[in-house]
Amino acid sequence: MNRTNHPHNTEINVAGNLVGGKKIAVMAGPCSVESREQILSIAKDVKKSGATFLRGGAFKPRTSPYSFQGLKEEGLELLKLAKKETGLPLVTEITSMEYLDEYIENVDIIQVGARNMQNYELLKQLGKTRKPILLKRGFSSTIEELLMSAEYIMVEGNENIILCERGIRTFENFTRNTLDLSAIPAIKKLSHLPVVVDPSHGTGIWWMVEPMALAAVAAGADGLLIEVHNDPENALCDGIQSIKTDKFASLMQKLKLIVESLGREI
Amino acid sequence: MNRTNHPHNTEINVAGNLVGGKKIAVMAGPCSVESREQILSIAKDVKKSGATFLRGGAFKPRTSPYSFQGLKEEGLELLKLAKKETGLPLVTEITSMEYLDEYIENVDIIQVGARNMQNYELLKQLGKTRKPILLKRGFSSTIEELLMSAEYIMVEGNENIILCERGIRTFENFTRNTLDLSAIPAIKKLSHLPVVVDPSHGTGIWWMVEPMALAAVAAGADGLLIEVHNDPENALCDGIQSIKTDKFASLMQKLKLIVESLGREI
Amino acid sequence: MNRTNHPHNTEINVAGNLVGGKKIAVMAGPCSVESREQILSIAKDVKKSGATFLRGGAFKPRTSPYSFQGLKEEGLELLKLAKKETGLPLVTEITSMEYLDEYIENVDIIQVGARNMQNYELLKQLGKTRKPILLKRGFSSTIEELLMSAEYIMVEGNENIILCERGIRTFENFTRNTLDLSAIPAIKKLSHLPVVVDPSHGTGIWWMVEPMALAAVAAGADGLLIEVHNDPENALCDGIQSIKTDKFASLMQKLKLIVESLGREI
Amino acid sequence: MNRTNHPHNTEINVAGNLVGGKKIAVMAGPCSVESREQILSIAKDVKKSGATFLRGGAFKPRTSPYSFQGLKEEGLELLKLAKKETGLPLVTEITSMEYLDEYIENVDIIQVGARNMQNYELLKQLGKTRKPILLKRGFSSTIEELLMSAEYIMVEGNENIILCERGIRTFENFTRNTLDLSAIPAIKKLSHLPVVVDPSHGTGIWWMVEPMALAAVAAGADGLLIEVHNDPENALCDGIQSIKTDKFASLMQKLKLIVESLGREI
Repeated sequence: MNRTNHPHNTEINVAGNLVGGKKIAVMAGPCSVESREQILSIAKDVKKSGATFLRGGAFKPRTSPYSFQGLKEEGLELLKLAKKETGLPLVTEITSMEYLDEYIENVDIIQVGARNMQNYELLKQLGKTRKPILLKRGFSSTIEELLMSAEYIMVEGNENIILCERGIRTFENFTRNTLDLSAIPAIKKLSHLPVVVDPSHGTGIWWMVEPMALAAVAAGADGLLIEVHNDPENALCDGIQSIKTDKFASLMQKLKLIVESLGREI
Repeated sequence: MNRTNHPHNTEINVAGNLVGGKKIAVMAGPCSVESREQILSIAKDVKKSGATFLRGGAFKPRTSPYSFQGLKEEGLELLKLAKKETGLPLVTEITSMEYLDEYIENVDIIQVGARNMQNYELLKQLGKTRKPILLKRGFSSTIEELLMSAEYIMVEGNENIILCERGIRTFENFTRNTLDLSAIPAIKKLSHLPVVVDPSHGTGIWWMVEPMALAAVAAGADGLLIEVHNDPENALCDGIQSIKTDKFASLMQKLKLIVESLGREI
Repeated sequence: MNRTNHPHNTEINVAGNLVGGKKIAVMAGPCSVESREQILSIAKDVKKSGATFLRGGAFKPRTSPYSFQGLKEEGLELLKLAKKETGLPLVTEITSMEYLDEYIENVDIIQVGARNMQNYELLKQLGKTRKPILLKRGFSSTIEELLMSAEYIMVEGNENIILCERGIRTFENFTRNTLDLSAIPAIKKLSHLPVVVDPSHGTGIWWMVEPMALAAVAAGADGLLIEVHNDPENALCDGIQSIKTDKFASLMQKLKLIVESLGREI
Repeated sequence: MNRTNHPHNTEINVAGNLVGGKKIAVMAGPCSVESREQILSIAKDVKKSGATFLRGGAFKPRTSPYSFQGLKEEGLELLKLAKKETGLPLVTEITSMEYLDEYIENVDIIQVGARNMQNYELLKQLGKTRKPILLKRGFSSTIEELLMSAEYIMVEGNENIILCERGIRTFENFTRNTLDLSAIPAIKKLSHLPVVVDPSHGTGIWWMVEPMALAAVAAGADGLLIEVHNDPENALCDGIQSIKTDKFASLMQKLKLIVESLGREI
């Protein structure tokens, strides 16, 4: 992933959408798929507002074994349905090799979550595929370690990697994590891979998502991962950091102005 | 400083320049004043590029007693001269009450550095003046603690306070500090005081200053504190995080485009 | 793992050795198995000095894919040989389910490394066995999260869990990690599970291993995990934090005195 | 303070008590002086249990200007009275030069609190005296920076410095701070100055004070700073981290056994 051996930015083709080029990728959707109605309604709304990918969790790694773990296979089926209805490519997290074939066949970008950033067995398996991988920075991993984990995927032959900054652990507890936007210029300097930012997990507070999303793009991010929900108060996970669909629409308006002032597109 | 008791943003009038309003304040200059030639040449260059304040250190608190401690009184004289020649208001750090009268008479914004954010005796003395105070967040202080320190100044009667995010200490050591841009929306939510950002100390790396300056403004900052030097390689302090005067000029061009896309001025 | 539902300390029987009782468990050995001569010589030396378990890595998860990854199956064979020759029960890390049966048959305590503390798929599989598990705290996981990960193992039915403090990530970089000894009383208060401490990874500096090992036991630890090497200068991994066999012998002498002053045994 | 220029440990003579030698110094008392009855009763109790110094705050730097700031001059008078009645030398914090003469005349060890560790003006003034100084590590300062701050005092000629580890800021919030006991061997390696540990502020939890005090001594600390109160529930500050006088008595019993097992005295 070293920039010196590979001076030009890598542009990854995901079902016809280039990630890492002039166009900003916007991956929006709920923390987890909860029902047919929920995912279809959110998918249609974010598509209407200009999202280019649908994000949503089917298999959810949670700190406590007693928390909602996702709808699993059923969630994956509902995501496929939402893709069919909206045409939005899917981004969803993988937590076990058990479902790899399922993911290869139906998912457009396979996400490796923060907790699995150093699960090298998983990374090596994904390296043997040619699927685009969204590799999230561990909440306490250095930028160097994130790039080393990407290397675990690349040495196996898969160069379709999108890196994601999603906040790191610090002493500050006003926010859930501290979103480290300096990771964007750092990664751009060291590597040729695209970088996206997740302001939802990065702050853990819905009213911070808009300002941090605008800041991420101003700092050079190639895309955003945003949690959007139609009913945050009753979301089964991360409601407090999800924005409503109308808030997402207005965010996209402001984003458009900044993106254009930077000479990029959305 | 509580937003609930005071819903409107506070705009601070510094020698005719409002900080905290529609206009972005740009405070630029060297880490420390080194010579007559140096400060005059930098002051003229940043003025030409659009800076609205001249920053520069005369008294430098340094981690080691053996590091350059600043030109002290002589540095202050040189700053006054640069102000006379360019008309730029001065922002410079105070480290001891000993020179308070000097500062009140000649300095436009008195800076309290990160190391003194919880030096309550100093804060109380500054609270007794009516000078604008630039209060920097301690590199390991929470947003809550920064606001509490501002309160130490306000209870004495001085409400002319500008808060400054300048990076916090984290495990990540690629950067000198981790610039916490989420502090901007957080402070805006909790308080009515203006917020400026120092991307130079916040990252410690000159090539990160531009992207992080753009990001800070996109996140809602009211101003920037930027280290500019005419000869960073030979700077007596912080050369590695200072940008050259021509780089500052191009930063101002890009900044202008983003600021306008946000409906603000510069 | 909650203390309130289970007031007494859990004592785990590992091949006849109780962990979590009056006796302090000392798990010593090299970071990784390098050769027949190396592992046999170290095993005999630590046994002679009073170690009660042999630790050593066969499968090594490393930050970089280009670092030594361990002797793998061959390493496991050499560990079995060392166990046969010394009678010391084995503690070694598992990184993939692929070798689970091998581990169940030959390893006495299966270690889950810091990087896999939140690899829930792995934890659930280990929960289905009845093997003693040594669960290391992630280098950036809270005490709460460590206990939650233990819960992932317990809900599947395996209650033979030993928790391990091995240092957390902080801004301090004099040490590799900051060994959080307050985790010992914290875990003892919240849970009934045994706690061991790894001062080798916890500090990353060989000359800190002795004082921190003594401190850990004074704070109430039930055991220690110590990296010992016969030739640290040429170790294939972690040489700088490994102590020589003679240093380990003198550490055991000092440890004996403190352990007795606490009314415990070694 | 460099060990290489000064191989032997510095022993500081405080009113006849050597700090930094074979004997462990125990500095005990309330967070702040609250009343004649309170300070006299606590002073007598800790003296009876074996404390060798009386600690107590008269001037309290607090995060909020609205919190109790100490009894100030009156508190100092009450400390002098307690010293007269018990013969215990005094350790108390200075926050302003205004009272320096008062402190020089009546206080035996002048404490510089964590918030003022980099208040260089204060350090330089204290360097001009010959009083023993207890320099606390800033809650986010590196070991290196603590030693550099000690250097600010020494360059002015005062070598009577006792360094104090009192916990650092980390992501872990089960404890108020993370007590970094590895700072003890680190400081002992780099410097010849005595090191004491404050487990009360270091953990912020009264039931952790005993295990961490024992651990600190096992790791090589030359002394302890312990908050003791006769009525923690109603203490005006830090009640939650203060131990009762009877708990302090039993702590001293256990401490004695460990100290002797280490070949030291108390």
